[in-house]
Amino acid sequence: MELYEKTLESQIIYDGSFISLKVDKVLLPDGKTSHRAIVVHSGAAVVVPVDDEENVILIRQFRKPIEKVIVELPAGKLDKDEEPLECAKRELEEETGYSAKEFVKLTEIYTTPGFSNEVIHVYLARGLEQGSSHTDIDEFVEVFKVGLDDAIKMVKNGEIKDAKTIIGLLLAKMYLRGEWI
Amino acid sequence: MELYEKTLESQIIYDGSFISLKVDKVLLPDGKTSHRAIVVHSGAAVVVPVDDEENVILIRQFRKPIEKVIVELPAGKLDKDEEPLECAKRELEEETGYSAKEFVKLTEIYTTPGFSNEVIHVYLARGLEQGSSHTDIDEFVEVFKVGLDDAIKMVKNGEIKDAKTIIGLLLAKMYLRGEWI
Repeated sequence: MELYEKTLESQIIYDGSFISLKVDKVLLPDGKTSHRAIVVHSGAAVVVPVDDEENVILIRQFRKPIEKVIVELPAGKLDKDEEPLECAKRELEEETGYSAKEFVKLTEIYTTPGFSNEVIHVYLARGLEQGSSHTDIDEFVEVFKVGLDDAIKMVKNGEIKDAKTIIGLLLAKMYLRGEWI
Repeated sequence: MELYEKTLESQIIYDGSFISLKVDKVLLPDGKTSHRAIVVHSGAAVVVPVDDEENVILIRQFRKPIEKVIVELPAGKLDKDEEPLECAKRELEEETGYSAKEFVKLTEIYTTPGFSNEVIHVYLARGLEQGSSHTDIDEFVEVFKVGLDDAIKMVKNGEIKDAKTIIGLLLAKMYLRGEWI
């Protein structure tokens, strides 16, 4: 079956510093047309920082869209022309103050392929060294440390609901357990 | 530390059938102001349909935002006033033709709390019975079946990159392995 949808027209609705919105008119496989609203995002990196005692560094952050303070892994948006690995290193240091000797790319994920092109690159960071955090001017976070197994319990009991954080924690555990390819 | 951001103003930029976009002016914890672009979404449900031989039913679907055909679990948006469980049952049947005797809620996830309020409710479905699929008028999908362990290999080798699908598969495996609470 042909699944591809050709773009007939594309209109920019909103052009912001963080996300933009466009609406594409598309040709469907059956010859009809439809509209797709698409959030354009530059991509991001998320880091699973695991220390020598198998603790993971997490953050608490207020997220306006859901009006809640939630637990997440350190993460952030790629700067213009920034490589995902550089972004991972920068965000780890900015948000938590930690730097890491070793980064392992675990995978990359589409967070919301139904309405956004966002890709998040997922890294495990080992060999941590503590410095001091210095977040963006409009970003406020609390940093804390918890055993990786306890963090995975927080996934199971619903204390951690952020998608990139769940994926980072579960894949890091599989990697560290030797259950990788 | 106070992390909450109060909304000072809110402006609707786009109001679509699938997503809407608003921009909020917020008061930051340090007394300054900033703007947050927020994609408003009604929420969704994703289903991990696992048969008695521990095969999982997956779909291939073209996703316009990333211009790719990708592998996902059956999922869809909540209709107005629809309960997440009803949505899970409906989407499973519409997209794959299967119905299920038993649904277990595994968790709920925030896909993109930095820019959207989308919540996806994650269900394991057991006791599958095959019927025929009947997707939405502008939706085209291919259904296929693969061993759950093979699907998890597809996560590890990067063939599956959709966030809700990765989470559904890994949590379903943990649940079926008895590693739940």
